[in-house]
Formats: sequence, structure tokens, C-alpha cells
Amino acid sequence: MSRLVLKFGGTSVGDVDRIARAARIVAAERTPGRGLAVVVSAIAGETDRLVQLTRAFAVRADGGPVDPKTFDDEYDVVVSSGEQVTTGLLALALRNIGIAARSWQGWQIPFRTDNAHAKARIGDVRCNEIGASIDAGVVAVVPGFQGVTEDQRITTLGRGGSDTSAVALAAALGAERCDIYTDVDGVYTTDPRIVAKARRLDRISYEEMLEMASLGAKVLQTRSVELAFAKRVPIRVLSSLVEPGAPNPGTLVCPEEEIVEKQVVSGVAYSRDEAKVTLLGVEDHPGVAADIFGRLADANVNVDMIVQSEARQPGRQNIVFTCPDRDAPKAAAVIQEAREKIGVEEIHVRRDVAKVSVIGIGMRSQVGVARTMFAALAQKGINIEAIATSEIKISVLIDAAYTELAVRALHTAYGLDAA
Amino acid sequence: MSRLVLKFGGTSVGDVDRIARAARIVAAERTPGRGLAVVVSAIAGETDRLVQLTRAFAVRADGGPVDPKTFDDEYDVVVSSGEQVTTGLLALALRNIGIAARSWQGWQIPFRTDNAHAKARIGDVRCNEIGASIDAGVVAVVPGFQGVTEDQRITTLGRGGSDTSAVALAAALGAERCDIYTDVDGVYTTDPRIVAKARRLDRISYEEMLEMASLGAKVLQTRSVELAFAKRVPIRVLSSLVEPGAPNPGTLVCPEEEIVEKQVVSGVAYSRDEAKVTLLGVEDHPGVAADIFGRLADANVNVDMIVQSEARQPGRQNIVFTCPDRDAPKAAAVIQEAREKIGVEEIHVRRDVAKVSVIGIGMRSQVGVARTMFAALAQKGINIEAIATSEIKISVLIDAAYTELAVRALHTAYGLDAA
Repeated sequence: MSRLVLKFGGTSVGDVDRIARAARIVAAERTPGRGLAVVVSAIAGETDRLVQLTRAFAVRADGGPVDPKTFDDEYDVVVSSGEQVTTGLLALALRNIGIAARSWQGWQIPFRTDNAHAKARIGDVRCNEIGASIDAGVVAVVPGFQGVTEDQRITTLGRGGSDTSAVALAAALGAERCDIYTDVDGVYTTDPRIVAKARRLDRISYEEMLEMASLGAKVLQTRSVELAFAKRVPIRVLSSLVEPGAPNPGTLVCPEEEIVEKQVVSGVAYSRDEAKVTLLGVEDHPGVAADIFGRLADANVNVDMIVQSEARQPGRQNIVFTCPDRDAPKAAAVIQEAREKIGVEEIHVRRDVAKVSVIGIGMRSQVGVARTMFAALAQKGINIEAIATSEIKISVLIDAAYTELAVRALHTAYGLDAA
Repeated sequence: MSRLVLKFGGTSVGDVDRIARAARIVAAERTPGRGLAVVVSAIAGETDRLVQLTRAFAVRADGGPVDPKTFDDEYDVVVSSGEQVTTGLLALALRNIGIAARSWQGWQIPFRTDNAHAKARIGDVRCNEIGASIDAGVVAVVPGFQGVTEDQRITTLGRGGSDTSAVALAAALGAERCDIYTDVDGVYTTDPRIVAKARRLDRISYEEMLEMASLGAKVLQTRSVELAFAKRVPIRVLSSLVEPGAPNPGTLVCPEEEIVEKQVVSGVAYSRDEAKVTLLGVEDHPGVAADIFGRLADANVNVDMIVQSEARQPGRQNIVFTCPDRDAPKAAAVIQEAREKIGVEEIHVRRDVAKVSVIGIGMRSQVGVARTMFAALAQKGINIEAIATSEIKISVLIDAAYTELAVRALHTAYGLDAA
């Protein structure tokens, strides 16, 4: 007996016609000896509508925000209902084409989480009953995003949690794979809106996918890839817009060792949501960096790249860091406030920057990868403002105006262009 | 410690402003030593929207309707979500004005029902936990319409079941009363749209209310009044549109013995959804009526008044009955089909008829009530097509064109007009 988990996102169940198509896709995956569970999101737009309803009560009489402790549990009751609706509808759609199916709400499985409402972490997923049911040929339709605490209160996993639900269910069921149906047909070497010659990847490793996702390739939620990596659940990303039966290979996200032909660079990612903060003439003594980045962390500023260099004056250094663009004013204010205490001469913020990265597990065993990158950018006259590297990634910060040009140049330089 | 159940219908929680007002109404009912539970419907229009979504899967590929056995359980999963949303929102609205509150879904209480999905009957409502919580000062917000089976599947009570949920919860909690907030300010002596001088009743007995409700005064669901009658739960019907603090006496539906001044006639009800079927020259032998009405029952025709009289020919009789207007063609067809077997000479259907009734527990001890009715109608030249009586009700069938005239004449004749 094998088991497979399928997951359909909000646009893939966006109306009753799409729900009917999702049912036909599930039908096509049904083979004797294989139990199926389907995880669904709310109908596209529905979660936003429900969140909007709760907003009326998210503000205190004096105008301040209400304490999440007295808000998030009932917020979860409201917003989790969107997924409940879709589970019932997909179960009906499956039965309508002759397939035994039933919905399982989070509390029925139970799909246990901690009690951090609105951003719950998944705990124990009890699969005895649902597992026996799918093995008996009844397709299980399960709400993504939704769980239940030990004391029987409804929780949600936070936005985009449905992918994570699907992976967690696949892990708990010991499923052979988790197929994530979405509105794109796989993971691409880069954004096809920017590079017409972008290619769909047949396979990508978890590590590469994590770098791709966190860099703005929004195909899969980072959390779901982390969980799949930890639990060794293969994920397949494929299109829900293709009629069942038509070719739809998608991209398999899998362990590195299952990728035979390791590319030096598998993809080029970019993010425009970046700002660069430059601190000039910072006093050079032990603990100064800890002080600066401690203050930023306390202010919830998510710092990414950090570059430190010597300044012209002796005993001084320059520090450059990047953060999400919306956090830039806050970051500057935090440093400004403690400027004299830290010992910083000047603070500059630049918000028209972008981060471009090349990612590939082959990098580990290959030299000259960075040189190719820098040469390709230099050839186009693109100045590099900062560089950061990891084992399987090289990122550069550049003027945002050159984003597309840089991505295209790198895509060509690493031989990723489709024939 | 006393307990009170409040119930808000769909229009009373029709948007976030109304939900906020409902919260203020609940706040005004909060006194030390009194535990509160609030039952809510879905936001007006929401249940219809959800039902509509399920319709896409209610038809088989060959065009026939799907078997309810493979439909109603998941239909319940979909449509019950509307009430879940309102419970979360009202709990948030209550907390927003400083009142401790939490939602309790049907499965959390548990609010047990049988497994007749889409029209479930209420079983055991376990109130230990929710009762302790409201006694501790936490307002419980409970979805109407929704329950859970022994094997943990979601059920719904059928349309309008929220009133019944509220009464069942009040009975289980041993509440002093069940206050039903709606878009009218009480039960009237007749329809105020027809009779400008209609008066709000301060009190009405369960028996009278049952006759009023089933005759088309749509203030309370018949099922909820039956349950309140059986469990001796007083119901108060009052307006949710009045600001908290303003006078809002409503109408108390209570045991007969609590009504000191018993009116001979408390109200005048009417129904235009009537058709009259006349069977002429029916063979007069034992069992013929059982045969006719057995066939109608098998065809699910809901027969109301029945009048039997001798025909001109010896050995023949005439039978007149009424049924809901939409059932009339079916009723005629059923008889037509078995006409020779039963022995019926002619079948006539008249669809432009209305039923007008006077209702009052005082009738039991009063003579001449019918005479007043017939005289009032005769005076206006209104012909009576059929008469039916019960202990506390007299109904007549008349030409539908005279409905308003008849209601007004009777309202005056029984001294019900407001000063």
C-alpha cells in the first residue's frame, strides 16, 4: 500500500469549475493500492475577506491595537472556516465523479499544533484513523493552514501555511511524495517574466529550493521546504491548470543525492525588496557589531547581508548591511538614536537597490563560480555594492535599475538559457 | 447563579456594525451572578451563498439529483462554516468592549445530534464545561444550526435551526429564559403590513405561538417553540435594532398559566400558500378516505384542512382538502392516476384561495367565538369555502383576493385593534 498527498492552492480551487478540475486531477492519480489525501487552501480571496471582517475588532476604543493574546484565538476560528468550505466542496466534487471521499477537519484528524494562535507550529499529526480510511480507498480531503490545540481550540499556521500542512501530513502518513498543484507548472531557472529563455527544472534539491524560495521565488513556502527537507518528503510542484492526462511533469524537490547531473548553478533569483544601510566611521572595538545588530534585532529588523571594512581614519571601520525595504527607516532610526553611544559618524540609507543571487549545489565542488558572476556583471557595466556568499549561493547587491539586465546576463553566463 | 441565553439571527449580525451592536446588547444583559450564552446565525446571505456553492455538485453527470446520503454530510461541512465565522467575530466584538468571551463550536461543546445530515435532530447537549465557563463570567458564543454526531461528523439542523439551537442550549443550561433578538420587536396580533392597528403582544402562550408560527407568522421557527413548550423554556422575542438601554419589552412566549388575562382571541393569522382540491362523487365505502390520503402522504403532499360531505347521488360523497399551493398539481395528478380505482367522478383544483385563522387560548372556555368570525366575514360579503377548527383556533378558507379585508375585519371584530 502506497500513499500520496496532493495539495491545491487558493487559485487552483478558485471557483466550482476549478474545484471540479481538481477532482478530476485527483481521480487520475488514483490507482489500486495507493491511498490519497488532498490538502486544500481556501477559495482564492476568501481568507482575505475573512481577515478583513476580523479587522473591525482589532482596534481598541482608544485607537491602539488589541493584544494578540485576546484576539488571535478567535481570529483563527474565523479565518480557518475558509478551508473548511473547500474541503466539503472538493469531497462533493469527488463523489460527483464516482470517487469515495470525505473531509477531515483539523480537529477530526487531529492535526495537533501548539497554541501560538495565528502562527501555530505543527506538533503531532495522528494518522491512524485517516490513514486507515485512505488505505480503504476513501480519498481524504484535509484543510491546509488549520490545526487544533491540545485543549481543542482551532489554530492556523499563518499565511501560506497550507503547503506546510501538506508536507506535514505527507510525513505523518509516510507518503511517497507530496504533489503541490499551483498556478505555475514548476520551478524555473529564474523568473520567466524577466527572462523569456527561463527553463523549468526537472529536479531541484531542498537546499537549492530553500535559497530560491527565501530569495523571492514564491512557488513554495520556505517553511514547507524546510519541513520536507527535515522529514525527507519529496515534493513535486506542478500545474493545476493542465487538464488531467496532459503532460505535466512539474519539478521534483528532492534530496541532493537523487540529482545525478548536478548543475553548478541551478537558478538565478532576485529580490527588489531590499535597502542598504551604510554606517561610516564606526568605532572599532570589540562588541560594537554585537551592539549594533542587537539593537536592530530588538527592533525586529531582519538584517540580511553584512559587510565590514576598514575606514580611512585609524581606529574606525565602515559597516554596510541590507534589510527589507520597509524596515529601512526603522533601522536608520534605531542607529541614529544610539549614534553617540555606539560611535557612528555618518548613516546613509539607499533604498533603490536589489539583490541578485545565483544558486547551485554544484558550487560546492566547483571553483571559478564567483568569477563568472562578477565578470558577467562587469561586462554589462553593473556595479556591485555588496557581496555575500554561502555554500551554495552567491548574492550581490546592485542598483535596482539593473535588476533585469543582471538576471538575464547571469542566466546566459551560467548556460541556463533554453535552446 | 442564574443563566440566560441570547440569540441573534442573520440580519441581527448582518455586518460588523450589527455584530458590534449585538455585543453591546449582550453587555447590557450582563449582571453579577448571571452566566450568558449567545447563539448566533450566519451573517445574512452567507448560508445562501454557501448552499449555492454546493449546488454545483448536487447534480449527477446524467442530470439526476445526487443521493442525499452521499451529499448531505459534506453539505453540512460547507454550510455550517457560516455560523463559525459569526461566533469568532462576536467573541472578538465582546472582548473589544472589555467583556471576557469565547466561541464554542458544536463539536467543542459537544452539541450532539443524530446523523440525519442537513436536518439533524438534537440529542444530548453536554453543558458541564460551557456551563462552568459562563458561570465564571466568560460569555459563550455558540453557533446556531450546527451540531456534531457521535462519530464526530458536523451536522446542521436544517434552515432556521438556529432558534432551535438556542432553545436546546437554554434547556440544557437550565437558563431562566431564551431571548431571541430579531428584526421585529415582538409577536403581533396580526401582520402589521396588513393591519396598521396591529398590536405587539406582551405575552403569548406556547400553544398560541405554535398556531401562529405554523400559520405563517414567521417570527419563530415552529420547531423551536415546540422544544421550548416541551422543556418549559420561556422565550422572549425582541428587537436587535433598538440601541441597548432603550425600551425593548418584546413578547414573552410562556406557559399558559403565566398569562393572567387570557384573550379569547390573541391573534389573526393568514396564509396565501394554499390550494383547494375538490373531489366530487367519491364512492362512499369504508377505507376510501384512508386510500386517498394514504396516496397523498406517499407523494409527500402535506394535506391541511379536510371537509367531507354527502353528494347528491346516493352512495357518493364529496371530499375537499387543502394543501400548499406548490403541491396542488402533484395532488391532483396522484388522484387522477388512481381515479377509477378509488372511484372519483370529478377533480377540481382552485389555487387562488387563502386561509385565515383566529387563535386564542381563551377560546377553550368561551362560546360564540366562531359565530363572531362568521358574522364578521358575512358582513363584508366574504364567502367561506371550508372551515377547520382546533381547540384554540378556527380557520376558514376564502377567496385569496379577500385576504386583507378578512384579516382586518376579524382584527376589529375581536377587539384587537390598538387604541
